[in-house]
Amino acid sequence: MWEYRRKVRYYETDRMGVVHHSNYLRLIEDARMDWIRDHVMNYNDMEKLGLIIPAVSASGNFKAFLRYDDEFSVTMKLVKFTGVRLEFTYEIHNTQTGELCYEGESVHYFAAGDDYHPISIKRKFPEIYEAFAAAKEKTEE
Amino acid sequence: MWEYRRKVRYYETDRMGVVHHSNYLRLIEDARMDWIRDHVMNYNDMEKLGLIIPAVSASGNFKAFLRYDDEFSVTMKLVKFTGVRLEFTYEIHNTQTGELCYEGESVHYFAAGDDYHPISIKRKFPEIYEAFAAAKEKTEE
Amino acid sequence: MWEYRRKVRYYETDRMGVVHHSNYLRLIEDARMDWIRDHVMNYNDMEKLGLIIPAVSASGNFKAFLRYDDEFSVTMKLVKFTGVRLEFTYEIHNTQTGELCYEGESVHYFAAGDDYHPISIKRKFPEIYEAFAAAKEKTEE
Amino acid sequence: MWEYRRKVRYYETDRMGVVHHSNYLRLIEDARMDWIRDHVMNYNDMEKLGLIIPAVSASGNFKAFLRYDDEFSVTMKLVKFTGVRLEFTYEIHNTQTGELCYEGESVHYFAAGDDYHPISIKRKFPEIYEAFAAAKEKTEE
Repeated sequence: MWEYRRKVRYYETDRMGVVHHSNYLRLIEDARMDWIRDHVMNYNDMEKLGLIIPAVSASGNFKAFLRYDDEFSVTMKLVKFTGVRLEFTYEIHNTQTGELCYEGESVHYFAAGDDYHPISIKRKFPEIYEAFAAAKEKTEE
Repeated sequence: MWEYRRKVRYYETDRMGVVHHSNYLRLIEDARMDWIRDHVMNYNDMEKLGLIIPAVSASGNFKAFLRYDDEFSVTMKLVKFTGVRLEFTYEIHNTQTGELCYEGESVHYFAAGDDYHPISIKRKFPEIYEAFAAAKEKTEE
Repeated sequence: MWEYRRKVRYYETDRMGVVHHSNYLRLIEDARMDWIRDHVMNYNDMEKLGLIIPAVSASGNFKAFLRYDDEFSVTMKLVKFTGVRLEFTYEIHNTQTGELCYEGESVHYFAAGDDYHPISIKRKFPEIYEAFAAAKEKTEE
Repeated sequence: MWEYRRKVRYYETDRMGVVHHSNYLRLIEDARMDWIRDHVMNYNDMEKLGLIIPAVSASGNFKAFLRYDDEFSVTMKLVKFTGVRLEFTYEIHNTQTGELCYEGESVHYFAAGDDYHPISIKRKFPEIYEAFAAAKEKTEE
């Protein structure tokens, strides 16, 4: 199963001694960027083609703390994909204890141009459309 | 009406030229800390009493971009308060354009001890309880 | 005397319970942006004219810790200005204790174009040049 | 030769489209933590023993920009070690172009206690002392 793994960095903690809750959106972004690279194409190359994928919404539950040096995994699924929008769900586990630390979801849209206006990628970026669609089908299996 | 105002800082933007979406959780935290100070007591002093308020969950919709130097306001309401948990809702507006940039909510619990275990504050911190309850009543008016 | 003041935010601390040392470069950037606005012009407007001021180098001594909710002041001086480069020195004090927490300096260059190539602003942006030169003279008084 | 490698993350960039200069102190911290783990002991375990290594000073030159998705390496040397203080030098290269992007140094002290007071580790932590001393000798070869 696809997953993203790394350890918590020192500056990701706050004075509670745990990962600041805002940073979970960064951890899942790290995972999402790698997921897109592995299932579709390098996100950086996608941006060079003029296609970006901003966040529309994000929500999550902080289930257990992560601390400095804890290794965590992010597992994720593409649960919706229309060519205009896409939605991912995420789980972050502490890989040593197995504990579920975070579960959340994020919705994104495909955008182009200097004003980041929404676009449908089906005709304009057919190969990217197909790759996302294939990844979405895999999720359903 | 209570609000928190400041301008977007340079390092809060990413290479899209807009505030990174993870930072909205920081903007509303800045507001929440000031709100707690103004309605209950200084959050730092609360922590010194051994009471902290970690996040249980957070969700939000990114409605419009904020850019460097944009002034924004955070308005917020305490919509639930039980002495064990509390829930806030937030709106972030661009103060120059009036545009709604973010709307979200966060749920928190009262915690104590080195392990941040949940507590009910009604008996242990009656004055803090009363101040939150009074703020909650104001919301309902 | 010109100064920048605000309080330390929660997410600026790390698990040592103090401001993470990398954030001092952010605190002095916040101050520098305000200083430039007050002495020259709004930095955002300057960027819209096509002029940016990237950092060439930065150094500093961490003299005392700043903690959450501590109010600090940044005082600073423009100590060199050539129209091509400029150098600032900074001091950060805890405003309650008066303690010196940080002293440092940063060197910057004027840049233009998509590749951020160095330029001399004397002819191209004479009003900006004059404003920086006047601010530099004030420093010497 | 020892080195730390990873790619630039999206949220490490700012609206200039490059890594925000404050983040270089985070990149070298990431490297330093791994270096200490590989040459001495896991930094997290060291903190559990009551020994921490705060920064006294840091300086660096920003030589070339790093952008999102660029892979970089951090190479570093322990150039001074007294049992009370230690000093590292760093170089960050873009691994694809070979370009030097950052060179800098940081000075740290050994600290203990809730007030992070300076200590000499030679008698109190002889094994840690020996490991740092051995790493320092290697540097000189």
